[in-house]
Amino acid sequence: MRTLMINADMGESFGPWVMGMDEHVMPHVDLANVACGFHASDPHVIRRTVRLAKQHDVKVGAHPSYPDLVGFGRRSIACSPDEVEDLVLYQIGALSGICQAEGTGIHYVKPHGALYNDMIKDPGLFEAVVKAVKDFDGNLPLMTMASCDTSMAREIADRYGIKLWFEAFADRAYDGEGRLVSRRIPGAVHEDPDEILEQAVKIAKGEPLTAIDGSEIELNADTLCVHGDNNDSIAAIQSIREAILALGNRA
Amino acid sequence: MRTLMINADMGESFGPWVMGMDEHVMPHVDLANVACGFHASDPHVIRRTVRLAKQHDVKVGAHPSYPDLVGFGRRSIACSPDEVEDLVLYQIGALSGICQAEGTGIHYVKPHGALYNDMIKDPGLFEAVVKAVKDFDGNLPLMTMASCDTSMAREIADRYGIKLWFEAFADRAYDGEGRLVSRRIPGAVHEDPDEILEQAVKIAKGEPLTAIDGSEIELNADTLCVHGDNNDSIAAIQSIREAILALGNRA
Amino acid sequence: MRTLMINADMGESFGPWVMGMDEHVMPHVDLANVACGFHASDPHVIRRTVRLAKQHDVKVGAHPSYPDLVGFGRRSIACSPDEVEDLVLYQIGALSGICQAEGTGIHYVKPHGALYNDMIKDPGLFEAVVKAVKDFDGNLPLMTMASCDTSMAREIADRYGIKLWFEAFADRAYDGEGRLVSRRIPGAVHEDPDEILEQAVKIAKGEPLTAIDGSEIELNADTLCVHGDNNDSIAAIQSIREAILALGNRA
Amino acid sequence: MRTLMINADMGESFGPWVMGMDEHVMPHVDLANVACGFHASDPHVIRRTVRLAKQHDVKVGAHPSYPDLVGFGRRSIACSPDEVEDLVLYQIGALSGICQAEGTGIHYVKPHGALYNDMIKDPGLFEAVVKAVKDFDGNLPLMTMASCDTSMAREIADRYGIKLWFEAFADRAYDGEGRLVSRRIPGAVHEDPDEILEQAVKIAKGEPLTAIDGSEIELNADTLCVHGDNNDSIAAIQSIREAILALGNRA
Repeated sequence: MRTLMINADMGESFGPWVMGMDEHVMPHVDLANVACGFHASDPHVIRRTVRLAKQHDVKVGAHPSYPDLVGFGRRSIACSPDEVEDLVLYQIGALSGICQAEGTGIHYVKPHGALYNDMIKDPGLFEAVVKAVKDFDGNLPLMTMASCDTSMAREIADRYGIKLWFEAFADRAYDGEGRLVSRRIPGAVHEDPDEILEQAVKIAKGEPLTAIDGSEIELNADTLCVHGDNNDSIAAIQSIREAILALGNRA
Repeated sequence: MRTLMINADMGESFGPWVMGMDEHVMPHVDLANVACGFHASDPHVIRRTVRLAKQHDVKVGAHPSYPDLVGFGRRSIACSPDEVEDLVLYQIGALSGICQAEGTGIHYVKPHGALYNDMIKDPGLFEAVVKAVKDFDGNLPLMTMASCDTSMAREIADRYGIKLWFEAFADRAYDGEGRLVSRRIPGAVHEDPDEILEQAVKIAKGEPLTAIDGSEIELNADTLCVHGDNNDSIAAIQSIREAILALGNRA
Repeated sequence: MRTLMINADMGESFGPWVMGMDEHVMPHVDLANVACGFHASDPHVIRRTVRLAKQHDVKVGAHPSYPDLVGFGRRSIACSPDEVEDLVLYQIGALSGICQAEGTGIHYVKPHGALYNDMIKDPGLFEAVVKAVKDFDGNLPLMTMASCDTSMAREIADRYGIKLWFEAFADRAYDGEGRLVSRRIPGAVHEDPDEILEQAVKIAKGEPLTAIDGSEIELNADTLCVHGDNNDSIAAIQSIREAILALGNRA
Repeated sequence: MRTLMINADMGESFGPWVMGMDEHVMPHVDLANVACGFHASDPHVIRRTVRLAKQHDVKVGAHPSYPDLVGFGRRSIACSPDEVEDLVLYQIGALSGICQAEGTGIHYVKPHGALYNDMIKDPGLFEAVVKAVKDFDGNLPLMTMASCDTSMAREIADRYGIKLWFEAFADRAYDGEGRLVSRRIPGAVHEDPDEILEQAVKIAKGEPLTAIDGSEIELNADTLCVHGDNNDSIAAIQSIREAILALGNRA
């Protein structure tokens, strides 16, 4: 029996530049993926974000990235697995230091952007991230993408005794293998709030989704990723949150 | 009864650039001040340095800095106390994450370069650093400069319950107030190995030093800072180490 | 006979982070101070900004800064004059390369933030900036703060044959020496649009302003600095622009 | 009739970290590939390097890179062609600004590390680099790798009217297509000074080389890349230089 957790990227401001509406999103999520300074955030922004998460009883997750501020961590960098392990560890530690100062701690790790996408495709990188989590604290879950076949991820995580949290998206179309449809393809992103809410509810109930090719797919997600950068999207998060809470725990 | 601890800056390489002879210095020191990525070091260099320290049973200290790689943390940056608190905390955390991965931890904090010099002169900055240490782990000592009058530092540290470690230098002349003589003044840096060794032994015994103005000064140092970037300086560290060990614990 | 030129900071976005409303400000100014990547901007933002300036026949100026993205160039860094000379030159060159690609060029140099404030107070830094301008192209004017006594700046600039452009502010109160009143002092910033417009017109006419201590001061400004980050401020720029144009050239 | 030009990477120090022996290499080369601050170098190092090149009548080339100091530009970053065009332009401009201050200019462009390797394989990136060169100054040659088939590079460069300089290596084995043999394969790097000198002379004479598979390949190189980071390698450069000069111009 568990409830689908809602996660959102947070702490994406940097120095004088503001991004996101963290104050408005935080009250409606369970998990805050906090940028650690390599693609966004800085020590001051991190601290403010951790404090805000604590106020709202939201669990803080480390959101480490390739080192690429100007590219916001969205560009793959050909780092070796050893480099990835160490830079993820550095970022988890930095965030953890600030959590410690605020009397809280890190609850999970979710790689960001290109690192997230690359690790899903490359077992060497996935293992590097798993090792970094294990190195730091073997009890922390690692968040990764839900899909029809997550055997690679599960095999590696099992080897290190690391728990995985699978995440799904309410506003994105899936292909027949349970992968996100590329944003370049028409229909990849749902715009209709009702359609988004419906997909969220299906994911929360553990019901199959209809893929873009018409097939039914099962995702078994632990958490749903939402984005809030304007009033509409925050209203959407709120609706999703209420719908999920209305379901109660699922079997 | 305690022995003067020897500390040295370590992990000052960055990416492809090598600095220092850490492998040769580590066997002869008690405390390794490990750069945290803001003036030197990177996640990979940090990890290698922590591992090396562990092999030689050397205690790891965080060596946080202003964010200034190109200037090696030697240039003051007009950061606010709040900024300093958070950026010190970030760096302590990052290093701590890597220590955790290597099954060890941080034992103390010593700010680097311009931040070290600035905090000695500016109570607001000193308090910011003390708060960062307290925020992270109130049991960690903070290393600062020994001098004849350390009342400002002690008053602030006491307020937060933070222990101070005072450090002295064997290769530098002192003025009558127990401050380092500026390098621009002739006689500021001792070149003669015997003179350096003699000063180290006096500091270790807790005996007064003769200041550049001829007066006698008492430093009450807990630790001695050494540098090893060539074979001569490493030989000097070794002699100092042996002389200190030969003294045994001091009263 | 000349018209007071209006200048504004531009190209202050960075990577994914947007700052300023350059598209709305550009049509109403004469001079665009374009960030060069050290406190804001990146190669892509610079290019877009230079293109926009060219479309509106606005002169591009280099807006170099201390290297401090997270601090937005607002924090003094204790750089040596030699360091300042070289880093200003690097930034002018980088911007110039992009101007060249867009078939235009740099028309003047205006240091940003803490570097601007520091050079006004420190003749060594002022000379370093003057030398960088001279090194690059001795025909470019250097923009600096108007005040009652600009003899230091003029003496140094004359020595290198560099022309100065003095800038004044319509929305800030001045003290009796023609220096900006600190923002911490009540009354330092004019909020009333009419008051701002009135001060702009006086500056444009070359009439004396009333300082905060009631005395009359003469500024002899060549250019007026404006800011546009919301609709109100853009409307204010437009009013000022119209008022200045209505004056025609002044004697 | 032309002489094979010798090129070497220069200005690879950064802040307090020294790399290379530029003072010893500069007297023996024709072309200095000067790092522009994205993978190595800083404004001060650049200036010193440009001055040194000028003293020895060595032509300065821009050596732009992906933005990756810690990785020394050796890791591919998934930049878009537009991003590459702008960041190459920024770097060329920055170096050019400093050249201008030293009364000299940029003579060619040679991308560094991963960017160099990527552009050879990806026509979109090659075109981006060509466009940056064209944008800045259509008279500058672009240096790229010699191989048996350089049609892609020539076709794109021709389209923009950009001259190419092809470079070869004396200390590396080639495969049958005139590509460098991967360093992971035994025999990829020549260690024997005589073998290196012999290959240099063949390249200088325009004679075919024997590839690792025994076939004969023609490279038609304009320039030879050398490295000098220790006394042996500098002696090797000197021998190569003398041997090439002894040949005189080739037909």
